[in-house]
Amino acid sequence: MPDTALPLTILAPQQFASDNYAGICPEAWNAMHEANAGSVPAYGDDPWTQRAADALRDLFEHEAEVFFAFNGTAANSMALASLCQSYHSVICSATAHVETDECGAPEFFSNGSKLLVAASTDGKLTPDAIRAMATSRSDIHFPKPRAVTITQPTETGLVYTIDEVKAIAAVCLELGLRLHMDGARFANACAALNCAPADITWKAGVDVLCFGGTKNGMGVGEAILFFDRGLAQDFDYRCKQAGQLASKMRFLAAPWLGMIKDGAWLRNGHHANACARRLADKISGLPEIEPIFAVQANAVFLKAPESVLDALRAKGWRFYTFIGGGARLMFAWDADPARVDQLAADIKNASESK
Amino acid sequence: MPDTALPLTILAPQQFASDNYAGICPEAWNAMHEANAGSVPAYGDDPWTQRAADALRDLFEHEAEVFFAFNGTAANSMALASLCQSYHSVICSATAHVETDECGAPEFFSNGSKLLVAASTDGKLTPDAIRAMATSRSDIHFPKPRAVTITQPTETGLVYTIDEVKAIAAVCLELGLRLHMDGARFANACAALNCAPADITWKAGVDVLCFGGTKNGMGVGEAILFFDRGLAQDFDYRCKQAGQLASKMRFLAAPWLGMIKDGAWLRNGHHANACARRLADKISGLPEIEPIFAVQANAVFLKAPESVLDALRAKGWRFYTFIGGGARLMFAWDADPARVDQLAADIKNASESK
Amino acid sequence: MPDTALPLTILAPQQFASDNYAGICPEAWNAMHEANAGSVPAYGDDPWTQRAADALRDLFEHEAEVFFAFNGTAANSMALASLCQSYHSVICSATAHVETDECGAPEFFSNGSKLLVAASTDGKLTPDAIRAMATSRSDIHFPKPRAVTITQPTETGLVYTIDEVKAIAAVCLELGLRLHMDGARFANACAALNCAPADITWKAGVDVLCFGGTKNGMGVGEAILFFDRGLAQDFDYRCKQAGQLASKMRFLAAPWLGMIKDGAWLRNGHHANACARRLADKISGLPEIEPIFAVQANAVFLKAPESVLDALRAKGWRFYTFIGGGARLMFAWDADPARVDQLAADIKNASESK
Amino acid sequence: MPDTALPLTILAPQQFASDNYAGICPEAWNAMHEANAGSVPAYGDDPWTQRAADALRDLFEHEAEVFFAFNGTAANSMALASLCQSYHSVICSATAHVETDECGAPEFFSNGSKLLVAASTDGKLTPDAIRAMATSRSDIHFPKPRAVTITQPTETGLVYTIDEVKAIAAVCLELGLRLHMDGARFANACAALNCAPADITWKAGVDVLCFGGTKNGMGVGEAILFFDRGLAQDFDYRCKQAGQLASKMRFLAAPWLGMIKDGAWLRNGHHANACARRLADKISGLPEIEPIFAVQANAVFLKAPESVLDALRAKGWRFYTFIGGGARLMFAWDADPARVDQLAADIKNASESK
Repeated sequence: MPDTALPLTILAPQQFASDNYAGICPEAWNAMHEANAGSVPAYGDDPWTQRAADALRDLFEHEAEVFFAFNGTAANSMALASLCQSYHSVICSATAHVETDECGAPEFFSNGSKLLVAASTDGKLTPDAIRAMATSRSDIHFPKPRAVTITQPTETGLVYTIDEVKAIAAVCLELGLRLHMDGARFANACAALNCAPADITWKAGVDVLCFGGTKNGMGVGEAILFFDRGLAQDFDYRCKQAGQLASKMRFLAAPWLGMIKDGAWLRNGHHANACARRLADKISGLPEIEPIFAVQANAVFLKAPESVLDALRAKGWRFYTFIGGGARLMFAWDADPARVDQLAADIKNASESK
Repeated sequence: MPDTALPLTILAPQQFASDNYAGICPEAWNAMHEANAGSVPAYGDDPWTQRAADALRDLFEHEAEVFFAFNGTAANSMALASLCQSYHSVICSATAHVETDECGAPEFFSNGSKLLVAASTDGKLTPDAIRAMATSRSDIHFPKPRAVTITQPTETGLVYTIDEVKAIAAVCLELGLRLHMDGARFANACAALNCAPADITWKAGVDVLCFGGTKNGMGVGEAILFFDRGLAQDFDYRCKQAGQLASKMRFLAAPWLGMIKDGAWLRNGHHANACARRLADKISGLPEIEPIFAVQANAVFLKAPESVLDALRAKGWRFYTFIGGGARLMFAWDADPARVDQLAADIKNASESK
Repeated sequence: MPDTALPLTILAPQQFASDNYAGICPEAWNAMHEANAGSVPAYGDDPWTQRAADALRDLFEHEAEVFFAFNGTAANSMALASLCQSYHSVICSATAHVETDECGAPEFFSNGSKLLVAASTDGKLTPDAIRAMATSRSDIHFPKPRAVTITQPTETGLVYTIDEVKAIAAVCLELGLRLHMDGARFANACAALNCAPADITWKAGVDVLCFGGTKNGMGVGEAILFFDRGLAQDFDYRCKQAGQLASKMRFLAAPWLGMIKDGAWLRNGHHANACARRLADKISGLPEIEPIFAVQANAVFLKAPESVLDALRAKGWRFYTFIGGGARLMFAWDADPARVDQLAADIKNASESK
Repeated sequence: MPDTALPLTILAPQQFASDNYAGICPEAWNAMHEANAGSVPAYGDDPWTQRAADALRDLFEHEAEVFFAFNGTAANSMALASLCQSYHSVICSATAHVETDECGAPEFFSNGSKLLVAASTDGKLTPDAIRAMATSRSDIHFPKPRAVTITQPTETGLVYTIDEVKAIAAVCLELGLRLHMDGARFANACAALNCAPADITWKAGVDVLCFGGTKNGMGVGEAILFFDRGLAQDFDYRCKQAGQLASKMRFLAAPWLGMIKDGAWLRNGHHANACARRLADKISGLPEIEPIFAVQANAVFLKAPESVLDALRAKGWRFYTFIGGGARLMFAWDADPARVDQLAADIKNASESK
């Protein structure tokens, strides 16, 4: 046997490479703990699941159809598959996670629906880009566009305003396209816009939302909300067949209840955003260093000389550089402001000693 | 907002309709709690995942390739898909969960691999039945058999002996078929046979095992062990694409560590089996009442007059009757012996007052 | 180079193992020849395709949506896929070609829709069997029934009467199921029933028909007719994506025109049926020899002592025994009555010298 | 009944919009006619299929595994699917037909393998572009590259030289990628390079070739040649399941025999190429008019002022402008030189009267 008793107490210093590095927040944890009492029916036929779905409906002020899935890959892929047949296509941005980081999951779940990458300079889709792509071809050799997916906030850390979502929804409506929102960091968008969840979803014309629970502070789980209830027909079968129906569903559902009931979901979003803002403010004005994209949610994409990035790596910092070539710094619900300050100081030092 | 603060304290009395009604056992819970400290890399690149995989390899005395998936539907379907192409087929029993209760998941994950139901009287496959099915056709209009799946213990609560598994593996080897074991209740089989995990898996000729964590006491998660490591090639990509790669993987992995390190996985299996045995013993000899299948693991399939079943329902007992028409009673890691006794007493009363 | 100039003139004597052994009938051939003149647009945008579709609509007295596919495997699989999502299921008979002889094609095209085999003694489905299967389960672990497929005539050579089709359609309507007809030998059914094509299709409640051209006398090609036009939405895209859109479509379409315009399709059906009848009549009364199924279309399933079958094989006759264990004899549009008589004589001799 | 007797004798003047507008060439037609005699086994178990496969093996001087499919969509998609699992990816050019004009067929047949578009200025892939794409990512969130597909000649009418194919094959070998050649117009490439088929396929490192029969002069059908025979394992099952197994296979096979035995396949290629050359030569030197891509095979992509294109349309000429914005003119085996001259004259007139 390996020495499994060995404690992992010497924890590494907090990194900002990903908001998936964080653990489970207290509100989600406590709800799981509470839900762990006793024996309840399986597969979602339990009071926790019912109450969590109701809580989401209340939060969104809409009698949406609500489903819980294990992760964002599956939630987004199943939602898109429900909008398309295999010979249809989905319009997305070039930086869309479904296009760049899902290993072909949308194509797998839909059995072939092609993603069409519309022009975008910063990861945000525009009505014009959607229209140009959707109307570029109309022959049967080209998969018929049926849906648009936007990520809110984008993978580049930008937030669509309410009006921007509405304008996209309008072109979708005009062209017969359904609108899907990948809300892996939806809470951060609500926090950034200081708006109600309804404002940037169904009130703005979104048909289906994947609301990310994991990055928001849960251990596992995403919620899928169909605001057009007709689109949800037999979606429970889809979840089952696709390996996304939890037998002990209460553990996917209860955390939502815990996080919604006292507002932790939104607090977590505000905190993460504030940490990104904090870093951006502290490094403002450093020579040759600037955010690649406006800092609107919980990400800072740092454009910096390679020597600076190397110096940060030498200091032990970890980050990805796959978008825009700069360092992606992503702040989670548990980001430690002191550690943010340390990062800012290290950037400053690296910049000065360049 | 719904009154989410309302406690769910008035818990319903424990039912034995399913071993998925149970919660998370203390050993799994504590490991998750321990794992929740601090910030660690995502997607399995963390110490918990490494240690859990190592613990499984030690437990099985084999340098198996180990993967973690969210649930059994996905674990079994992905494992079978890795053994087949879409035009191949999988031989199974008529009661196999993959055939009866997965809503077409194996076909979905494999993009069409057909399940071939071999003759079986009690849910157990035999070498003869496998051979008969595998050799029934050899033309290209019939999907080529490439794999056999057995459930250990079976959905009928029976346990394959070591020799039975070996005999099945021998015919598989002879016919060029791969052997998959659905171990949704694998711990119960080990407990029943009082053997090492290796004895009924790779030492007996099993190529890949899906080891059920959920029914064994975890909240979510199954382990997939490839004893033929070559079969695991790029399986990590398969998991990712199929929506089965947890970002915060530590919470899927840590419970395995907690349950393996002090033997809870096996204790839980023994306890559940003992409760089934306890019920069977207490109702032995009652007129017109008998187990449909031998009680070997944690299930009792009760053959009883309809009036008895109705009387039990009237007393508040819940159970499924989809296999064999009798009442399926399935005991979990947390089955309360007192409650088992109460059920036995209710059966006895119902039988006597018939 | 192989001696490709060598003529294949020493033709083997005609066999009745399959109606796919026949070549192209004159009417289909001549239409192809006529269509081969000049240059026309590709992918169905040509006058031949338009006229063939119109001819089919006239023949069926219905403004059906008409598509042409290369073969029956694809036609039936695409039609079923258009009725189902991957998590739905299709009720069929145990002898249905889609279940027994398509190598998992329906599951492949639909990405996992499961075929549910309803009870049947002779290959014909009944309303009761459909109802029993469709209502056997209603939980999400079981793929939701959405369609029924019947083969007309059946793989056992039986013909559904108009009333039988109507009764099946009625139960489909009641249960929310769509009705698909596999008409690989549809012409033989029309000939047998002496009815108009409309009578056993849309007038009887069929939603979609796959009308077999190949067995009817063409070289390649099937027609798919959607009588519920709404079901055909974007079906042209489905054909394209599934590799079933012919670039030189005129060669798939023109034979239909040739065969419909002077009634060859029906003549061929009558002739093939008559040959089956001829054989059945000539061997009537032989001891221990009888048709397994009533001879209603173009097939005779011969129940005979193994010694008789062996004697026939020794005489050079070829036949399959995969249904019912007897010899399947299947007559095509070009079946030579003299050769039928020779077979009858050989059976008689084999029977007498047994 | 529609007036199906009406002759289609008033044929439209020949267009060069597509080489799919042509009919069946005499050599293919005659072989089909010869093959139509008598009764032969179905599904490829006939002498014509055997001889056609042998003829292809002789033509390629290689004991390749040979299969026949109905069209190029299916041939290419099945070939690529045999090189990949769903979580793998295929590197192609931005103009590759599999990427732009197959309605998601490669993704459908492979159940999700993503096409990765490598940089290319003119439709030709280069070793550097392949390497850059193949090594751009190596994490499991990105589908693992497993194959490269090149079109020979390209969709832009360019021909890879033997050395260019070899250089691509070398980088494939180095990176563990399989090399697929889409040879929809393979005969035109052989004619252009004046080389043996072997020289630009297996001798240059190609693993699998889809050899286009339709554009070469047949009515329907493509050949798939696996030079790495191991890759063809169970490919016959794949064809069957995917709806690509012809029951009357002789009609797909015989045309190959007819076209190979007297060299018609190559003659057709030469003729079509010569017509493209003829047009290019005749319009050479016209102001503002030039080929967008070098004229190497049977296509001319005409860059011309919009007024010229409009004048041509007014004269009744038809052409696509989807690649490069110019007029694509594509010459088939039956292109009439007099009609080519007429087009050249119309271009000249349009240019002068601009």
